[in-house]
Amino acid sequence: MDPAPVQQSPSVAARLEMRAGRWTGPTQFRVPGFVQCNLVVLPRAEAYDFLVYCQRNPKPCPVIDITDAGDPEPRASAPGADLRTDLPRYAIYRKGVREADVTDIREHWRSDSVAFLIGSSLSFDDALERAGVPKSTEVWVLNTTIPTHPSGKYCGGMVVTMRWMTPAQAVIACQLTGRFPYNHGAPVHMGDPAAIGADLVHPIVGPPVSRIPEGVMPVFWACGVTPQAAALSAKPELMITHAPAHAFVTDLRADQICTP
Amino acid sequence: MDPAPVQQSPSVAARLEMRAGRWTGPTQFRVPGFVQCNLVVLPRAEAYDFLVYCQRNPKPCPVIDITDAGDPEPRASAPGADLRTDLPRYAIYRKGVREADVTDIREHWRSDSVAFLIGSSLSFDDALERAGVPKSTEVWVLNTTIPTHPSGKYCGGMVVTMRWMTPAQAVIACQLTGRFPYNHGAPVHMGDPAAIGADLVHPIVGPPVSRIPEGVMPVFWACGVTPQAAALSAKPELMITHAPAHAFVTDLRADQICTP
Repeated sequence: MDPAPVQQSPSVAARLEMRAGRWTGPTQFRVPGFVQCNLVVLPRAEAYDFLVYCQRNPKPCPVIDITDAGDPEPRASAPGADLRTDLPRYAIYRKGVREADVTDIREHWRSDSVAFLIGSSLSFDDALERAGVPKSTEVWVLNTTIPTHPSGKYCGGMVVTMRWMTPAQAVIACQLTGRFPYNHGAPVHMGDPAAIGADLVHPIVGPPVSRIPEGVMPVFWACGVTPQAAALSAKPELMITHAPAHAFVTDLRADQICTP
Repeated sequence: MDPAPVQQSPSVAARLEMRAGRWTGPTQFRVPGFVQCNLVVLPRAEAYDFLVYCQRNPKPCPVIDITDAGDPEPRASAPGADLRTDLPRYAIYRKGVREADVTDIREHWRSDSVAFLIGSSLSFDDALERAGVPKSTEVWVLNTTIPTHPSGKYCGGMVVTMRWMTPAQAVIACQLTGRFPYNHGAPVHMGDPAAIGADLVHPIVGPPVSRIPEGVMPVFWACGVTPQAAALSAKPELMITHAPAHAFVTDLRADQICTP
């Protein structure tokens, strides 16, 4: 037997629990300090147009790692990991329809599968907290009318996350999140939701809001659901993603501004 | 006849001079305030591996714009421009060999040509100057032994630019250039050139240096020549680039931190 590593990273320990099938629940607010990523797996034939879409829309679609076709190891962000087993839960889509949720995608992985790991705003919540902005108890996800730059059949409106903040907190948030370009960077909007076509009464995630509370303003960030939504509406033959809130935990430190 | 535009951007005016063949000289230190980009044109069959190479090496290879196959208009960074005519000078490479320099590539442009515009460190020199760091009279370009992350046949060592700075200037430069992730961001190294395998006696560009002057230290940034060198060593059937120092002038303001 191999000796246990002297000091195992908490990110590696978390992934091994997932690989063993003992961790099938959400990752949100778990393994603090490590960058969590959204996963999109597409056939190689779809990968170019999708990658160009991400490149053209870096705020919602910051690509942190991309695997070679058929290779499930994200070498830059988590060497030794296996993207077929090391997430707690996956969603399988065929031609844009969610077919099943699974905890292992080995039987769906193909020799032409390409995995994209896309940055998530979860990573800057800890940094905001250390800067004196209390963690949002609720993060909304909303559709908007902000257009994205299309690539091939990949297109659609930008999806955003929303957090309530006092004006003073919003100032801190603008300064601080701008330093995390791989986690959606600075806000895309502050204030009136209608200005970006966001409907708080009908959010994708979060409770309906009929009235903005006194003394706070909504602050909006580009969201990693955007590329997933664009990929879905493109109806690729096969697409595999993380199940919502069940992200991939990388070995990258969230406080590193730059990725590999 | 169309009426003249009320206020033409200096970037548009510069490109029209180039298109008309009246501007065939360098762009360095010209059209201040506008982002200048390195150009790499490849056949579509080569574009995916090259784009993945850029994505895996964002410090030397920040992709600012990428065109659809066959379309010479960089829609995000310079709407209305034509990349076949709007640079002052191009270099044509076949299987890695520089064949000719031309001022117009219309006859070499194909229905499967894809153009990549890659950020350049020229863009932050003005910002440094405004922050009290005098413009470097000389910028060296050097090979290093810093490995890049390969993609397909695209690989090689990182190429860097070097500027002399006092320690106080270097501190300002670290803070300031980190805010320009699309222009190579913060330095990759400071101090001893040997630590990154840089040979000041044999630079790619700049006079040989046998001794570092008193009171200054060398500061090194990732350089946009890196992807060009990787593409060259991959010997693609056809590659077209800007001629050195004859870059593409976009409509993007250099002080905008984020690109489209």
